[in-house]
Formats: sequence, structure tokens, C-alpha cells
Amino acid sequence: MKTNRGRFFEDYTIGQVIAHAVPRTVSGGERALYHALYPARGALYSSDAFAQSCGLACAPMDDLIAFHTVFGKTVPDVSLNAVANLGYAEGRWLRPVFAGDTLRAVSEVIGLKQNSNGKTGVVYVRTRGLNQRDEPVLEYVRWVMVRKGNPDAPAPDTVVPDLAGAVPAKDLVVPEGLDFTRYDFSEAGEPHRLGDYELGEQIDHVDGVTVEEVDHMLATRLWQNTAKVHFDATNREDGKRLIYGGHVISLARALSFNGLANAQMIVGLNAGAHVSPLFAGDTVRAWSQVLDIAPTAAPGVGAIRLRLVAVKHGTPAFSLKGADGKYAQGVLLDLDYWALMPL
Amino acid sequence: MKTNRGRFFEDYTIGQVIAHAVPRTVSGGERALYHALYPARGALYSSDAFAQSCGLACAPMDDLIAFHTVFGKTVPDVSLNAVANLGYAEGRWLRPVFAGDTLRAVSEVIGLKQNSNGKTGVVYVRTRGLNQRDEPVLEYVRWVMVRKGNPDAPAPDTVVPDLAGAVPAKDLVVPEGLDFTRYDFSEAGEPHRLGDYELGEQIDHVDGVTVEEVDHMLATRLWQNTAKVHFDATNREDGKRLIYGGHVISLARALSFNGLANAQMIVGLNAGAHVSPLFAGDTVRAWSQVLDIAPTAAPGVGAIRLRLVAVKHGTPAFSLKGADGKYAQGVLLDLDYWALMPL
Amino acid sequence: MKTNRGRFFEDYTIGQVIAHAVPRTVSGGERALYHALYPARGALYSSDAFAQSCGLACAPMDDLIAFHTVFGKTVPDVSLNAVANLGYAEGRWLRPVFAGDTLRAVSEVIGLKQNSNGKTGVVYVRTRGLNQRDEPVLEYVRWVMVRKGNPDAPAPDTVVPDLAGAVPAKDLVVPEGLDFTRYDFSEAGEPHRLGDYELGEQIDHVDGVTVEEVDHMLATRLWQNTAKVHFDATNREDGKRLIYGGHVISLARALSFNGLANAQMIVGLNAGAHVSPLFAGDTVRAWSQVLDIAPTAAPGVGAIRLRLVAVKHGTPAFSLKGADGKYAQGVLLDLDYWALMPL
Repeated sequence: MKTNRGRFFEDYTIGQVIAHAVPRTVSGGERALYHALYPARGALYSSDAFAQSCGLACAPMDDLIAFHTVFGKTVPDVSLNAVANLGYAEGRWLRPVFAGDTLRAVSEVIGLKQNSNGKTGVVYVRTRGLNQRDEPVLEYVRWVMVRKGNPDAPAPDTVVPDLAGAVPAKDLVVPEGLDFTRYDFSEAGEPHRLGDYELGEQIDHVDGVTVEEVDHMLATRLWQNTAKVHFDATNREDGKRLIYGGHVISLARALSFNGLANAQMIVGLNAGAHVSPLFAGDTVRAWSQVLDIAPTAAPGVGAIRLRLVAVKHGTPAFSLKGADGKYAQGVLLDLDYWALMPL
Repeated sequence: MKTNRGRFFEDYTIGQVIAHAVPRTVSGGERALYHALYPARGALYSSDAFAQSCGLACAPMDDLIAFHTVFGKTVPDVSLNAVANLGYAEGRWLRPVFAGDTLRAVSEVIGLKQNSNGKTGVVYVRTRGLNQRDEPVLEYVRWVMVRKGNPDAPAPDTVVPDLAGAVPAKDLVVPEGLDFTRYDFSEAGEPHRLGDYELGEQIDHVDGVTVEEVDHMLATRLWQNTAKVHFDATNREDGKRLIYGGHVISLARALSFNGLANAQMIVGLNAGAHVSPLFAGDTVRAWSQVLDIAPTAAPGVGAIRLRLVAVKHGTPAFSLKGADGKYAQGVLLDLDYWALMPL
Repeated sequence: MKTNRGRFFEDYTIGQVIAHAVPRTVSGGERALYHALYPARGALYSSDAFAQSCGLACAPMDDLIAFHTVFGKTVPDVSLNAVANLGYAEGRWLRPVFAGDTLRAVSEVIGLKQNSNGKTGVVYVRTRGLNQRDEPVLEYVRWVMVRKGNPDAPAPDTVVPDLAGAVPAKDLVVPEGLDFTRYDFSEAGEPHRLGDYELGEQIDHVDGVTVEEVDHMLATRLWQNTAKVHFDATNREDGKRLIYGGHVISLARALSFNGLANAQMIVGLNAGAHVSPLFAGDTVRAWSQVLDIAPTAAPGVGAIRLRLVAVKHGTPAFSLKGADGKYAQGVLLDLDYWALMPL
């Protein structure tokens, strides 16, 4: 059997290190496609001139290009037989990715817990993305529910990693050279600096984008993500394809430009839940809430912790959870991240 | 309120200068996407070798990539609350855009006229696109009908700019170094040189292209054009998205290769009307008419003034206006432009 | 009449050489789009670092990017009035194509045979793709059935070229410098080397991809292929567009990564039949069979001859031909090619 049927729950062991296949060089082509696929307008990622005025060599790839590329590498080894993508923690962007960089990914199994039904289990991996100089560009923990291939395989000892509720601001890595002291708010698109945002403030990002099957398949293929459910209409009775959760992250993040144009670089991923699936034909909207604000050591650069919530059109403004603590109908994504913003 | 709700009619004043946000670096990625989105085949834009044989450093970006990028920058400030895009005039391409260039846009308000209904008004802006060296690459006037935000806002003094009916041939700017004396007609795809076209001659471009929702959304996002009607199916009762008028310009221009393969560079935009909306599922066809022919100072380079008309499939050949002077059913676009062609 | 109505059968003569129009420079943009359009994961084409470890200067363009680009150039001259694309033979990739290369194509008519109905004929052309240094990058023979424009045109003398059933392994051209002695199987995605494959072995590639109208139109436009049937829904009563046969080749080749991840470079095209048309909404699957195995002079590099069969979802495993020698229902493509694989 030469084809990859993916790993099952019993194939993972604590401490196992998986070097994922197919390193990937990114270029201006990936950047252009990102702009075509998402309504992204962040000035730092759009303009070499703007990035240079902020102390970088040129415009980096969108931080989510780095994330999706690294994530895509892990799919054949981690989530081909996944039932659900359960969460993220301890994510940090460690270095910008520029056109010409080659990314690869390595994961370590840091947790295992068989479910009481005996048919599935939760696998926790810490994934690291590295560039062609073996410098880490990104790391994060995610956990997924994976089917057992052999229901009779014995349950492993339960190991549930102790994960931080959020990345402490002091652990965030600001790209070398980043300097927002000459930041041009007019070019960036909005006047709001870090001090203009209040803890708890909620922002409705107003715009919406209707999703088609082709959009998400182009994107998901671009990241070389091989999960069958995204591409093969014969997997579901209704012929629909399940949209890659990362596609929703990018849509919501791009929509959040309207109100958060200066939340320029994503540097931390504290938590994330893909609350409900998105399908073609749905229209996605987004809102954000300010969770925290912190200084950094870089000139003119502060950090803002944001909750980014994607919802389907028609969901009441600022929907999140009901009185029962469960997510409200129509919520698609609940993401908790850190971004860098001019002071 | 941190989000941009766009400017309303009463927010504009004569002489106001708006520096539009989010400068944009273009690359081979934008070029490749342009070729994927439109059936464009102009040799000068497809081949570095061909462009070099014409005296350029390498193949420039399609002139409409420059136009769409600059246009897209203006949308959040000029047409977010526009009811209609009424016209173009005095457009000139001033310098080719090459991969690696960063474009930004600045507009000046040059005309204002409140409509008699008191609810809307016409705003005239002269927009200029500049590269990273602050060299102008493109300028044009467009006017749009914009809603008033406050119906009680007083009407401004009416100022209607005196716009040229067409850019005089002597004012066209030929890119530095352009030389068509060694032009390879075989490589370009057609043998017809400027002298082969007659004033008044009409050309049916034969081919058609059926448009899908994804096509135009990818394109319009690529230009970072944020007008909601293009992306959000919930804006219309029928769930359709209104296709960005510039998408129709690019489709028609690309189709016009068949018969006008040597109308290589767009250097002037004399006038343009988005006559009726295009929707996904429609098939677009195009025809052209030769309006004028002129020499230029560059070796082997002439100028041809063309009317480019886009129509829906099923519209009779060479449809334009009826006896009543109104546009015929099925006409989508009526564009009047100058291109450079070998003598 | 300035537009191109294409050549008809009587317009071809034996020995006629046609230099096809519109040379094309490819870049990282074309590569990124290839990854977005097809689930391609070949490490040599994804990663500059991996390609360098194999002795190349950087990652080349996918061999099928070269093929589609050259093929697209020939369409306006060879197959605009084609009724069917009948076959391929004697195809060889002669040199990798890198970002920045400019491709052009030249074809020679090597065979003509009028059909007994007097309305159509078969045209055989040998096409060569060349780069900006006039170095050949690709050559192949294809034959198409073309309509006569004038039914009364006399039949030409019948010339049917004597074509090799397969490219002999000794005639395959291995790219200069290619060296698989330090090949990293883990990075490439599978452990199987040439010696792990047996003659006659069949591999079901497992995955499937559902095709949409936009996918194939984006791809086919990207290759500047102008055949009307791919773009214009008004050509068929059912409003469907016929999908470019090369799109199916790329889909099947990309799917074959699962089981043939180390069949890295396509160097020979022995034969190919577009058995039945593919339409949007169909889901494509693929299987391969090992037809031959051969050494090459390059260090660590072997050659594997593969039959690649694309089928519609629902077709029984390993479907090909029935007892009557006819292709089974659901078979889309039967392709016979040589690839290079580490020993």
C-alpha cells in the first residue's frame, strides 16, 4: 500500500517528532493570491515602501500565509483522520516570512487522551514552522480529535499538557527592526492608535463577504492542505464541501481591517475555536473585542489582544455565547490573538 | 465609531485633496492573476523578451492593472456611498508600472453639483496614481453620484469642471524608450498595423466569455476595491453581486485582442460609461470602432483612438444606441480610449 | 476581416512551419496559481531548497506549466476549429523552465489525412517550446481532427507519420545537474524509491477533487488557451463549458502524488487520450500503473514509465477498457508518460 491513509489515534506516542513533508517556497504569487482570496488591506503586507518605513526590508507575507502554509504541511500527518479541530494555544509568530523564503514544519506530540467511547482520542501537537535557514518563524499548539484505526488498540496513558490561557505579552516576539515611530496613519487607512482602544471595546466590522466553493478550494489547495472534506463533494450527502477553518480565520481577519487597520502584525495566537462549519453560499461577517493592551520593547510598537469573532450574516450584532455558556447560533469562529499596533 | 462608513456628498468640498490609503506593491503574482482572470494576450505584457525588443526594460504590468489598483485605492474615500459611477475623462497613462513598483493614489475634488432631489449629488475627482518614486503613473477624472448622509446639509455651490471631450493626441505620453521599428507582428499575433485600420471601421471581436461570481470577486479583491455590492450577496434581494465595472473593461479589452492584437498600450481614457450592470452567468462579447488615428514622436509608434463596446451575448452585432439616442438593450460598457500601435 | 477565425483543414500543408504568437514570461505567480488550481505537492516544484539539494539552481516550474503554456500558444493556429484532440506521441521535456523564462512555440505540420466524410481531416503537428535563449524546453507530436472550411477543397495527399509507440528510455533528457543521491524522502513525502515499484503495479490514488467552472476557466486562461468551448457557455445547449483536456492531466497528475510522490519530473509523454469530456460538478479520481522502469546516466536518478488514468467518481477501481477493447464508462484520460524517480 503506497498511498497515505493518514495516522490514527493509536499511531501517536508522547514525545514523537514528525517532520512534515514538502517544504514550500513562497513568493509574490502567494501574496497576490492572498489579496485575491481575502479582502486583506493591511498596509504593511501590501506595500514594500510602507514596510520599509516601518523598519522592515520589504513587505512580509501576511502572517496567516505563514500560518496556513505551516498548518497545511501538518495535515497529512496530524489531521487526515481528524473528526474535529478542537483548539489552539501558545501560538507565536517568531520571524516574518518574506518572498523567497522556504517553509517547513515539524510537530511534537505533547498530549494524548482516549475518549470514553473508545473510538476516538485527542492528540495534542506543538508545531513549529522553520525557514530555509532553520530559523523558527512560527509555533503553536493545536489539538484534534482523531479516529482510532483499530478499535481494539489499547488506550495510551492520558497526558494532557498544561497550556497557557494566553501568551503573556512579555513573551511576544517583535520582528527585528520594527519601528512604528514614523508610522503613517493616513497611508495605513485609519487614525486609531493603541491608546484609542479601550479594554472591552467591541467593534462591528460592518462588511460581509459571500463565500463560494471555488474561493476556499483555491485557498486550501494553495496551502497544500490535503484534507479530503474540503475538495471532494462526494464526502457529504449534500454535495457540499466543508470549508477549511483557516479560511474563516483569514476572512474574518481581513474584514477586521475596517476598524482595526492598524492592528498590523499578528504575533500571538492565544486560543481559537472553530465553533460551527461554514459552507459556500453563506455570507461571513466579523466583530472584535479588545481583551488586553501591552507595551513592547520596540520603538512606537504596542501590543493589542483581540477576540475576533466570525459570524454568519443574520446573526445579531456581537453574538457570542448564550446564557447557558454555549455559543450562539451563527457563530463560526472565536479567535483570541495578539497583534502589534502603533502607540 | 472606528469603522469607515465612507464619505457622503456633504463631506466633499472643492479643492479638497484626499490621499488614499494602503499603498500597494505589484509583482509577477498580480500579472499571473490578470492572465488567469481575463483572456488577455497582449505580447508586450506577456513577454519580457517582446517588451525588450520594443525598447522597454521588461514587460510592464497591464495598463489596466495600474488603473484598477489606483481606482481601488479611491473607493473607500470616493465611492463607498456612490449610487452610480457616471463617467471618466482626461485619463492618461504617464509611465509604465513594473513588477516591484508600489502604487498609491491621491484625488482632488474638482466639481460638486447637488441633484434637484436633494438626496444625492455628483462629485468630480481628478485622481492621480504615483509610484514609490512619487512619479505619476496615471491620472483621470471620474464623477460619481453620491448619497447625502444628512438630507438637511446645505447644497454646495455648483461647480462643474470643463472637461475635454477627448485627450488630444499631442498630450498622450509615450513610455520612454518605446520603439516599434523592430516590432514582430508574428509574435504579437496579428499582421495589422496602424495604416491597416480605417476611421470608422468596426471590428466584431467574435469571442465571448461567461462570467462567474468567483471571477469578479477575485479580481475586485485583488485591486483592494472595497465596494460592498461586489462581495456581499445580502445587499440585493436576488442574492446576486453587482460586478465591478472595471471588470467589464478588462474583459472587453482582453476580448478585443482578436482584431486589435497590436493596439498594445493604453495611453488615454477619453470617456467611459458603465451602461448597464453585468451579473454572473452572463456571457460578455465586445466590438470596437476606430475613432481617430494620430502619429506620435516615438519611432514606429502611432496612436489609435478606439471605442470599445461590451455587450451581453444575444445583443445584435455592433449594437450601441437606438434612434432615441439611448443605449440599446444589452450594452454594458461604452469606452473611448487611446492605444499605441505600430505604424 | 481582422479577426482570427482559425485555420481549417485545407489551410495546412506538409512541412508548413507555424511560429505561434504571444511569447510568455512565467514567474512565481504562475507557480502559485498552479498550486491553487491543482492539489500539486511535488517537493522539487514546491521548494527552492529541495530543488537545490537535487542539484538544480532553484525549483523549476511544474513540467505541466511548460506543457500548458506551449500548448496554449498552439491553439489559435492548430485547434481553434478542432473537433477533437486525438492523441500525443514522442513528447520530451528537454530543459526545466524557471521563473523569469520566456516561452514561445513553433509547430511543423508532419501529417495530413482527410476523413472519408470529406468534412474533416486529421492534422499531425510536431510542436517545440523554446525559451528566451532559443533553447528547446519541450517537444511533442499531437494530432487533432479539424473541420474543413470549404467542403469542396481538394483532399491533400495522405501522410501519416510513423510515430514511436513510446519514447525509448535512452532518449529521455535528464536536466543538467540533477542528482538524487542526497534525495530526502522524508521531505518529499513518501519512502518509495524506484526499486519499490514493480512492473504492472497499480496504485489507486485515493483522493478526489470536485471541479467547478471557475477552476478550469482560470487555468485555461492562464495558459492563454483561446479555444472558445472552454469559456463561452453559449456554445452548448446545456450551458456547460467543456473543460480543457490539459486541466484533467494536471488534476490527475497532482492526485497521483498520493502513492507516487517521488515520481518527480515528467520527462517523456508517450501517448495520451482524452477519452471522455469532464464537466463542472464532476469529481475526478485517478489511478496509475507502472509500465516500465529504466536507469539514466544521472546520479541516483531512474526513470519510471507510468500509465495515469483519470476517472469520474463512481467508476469502479482501476477501470480502463472493457472486453470489447473500448474505454469503460467514466474514464476521462489515459496518459502514458515517463517521470524521473530516485533509485
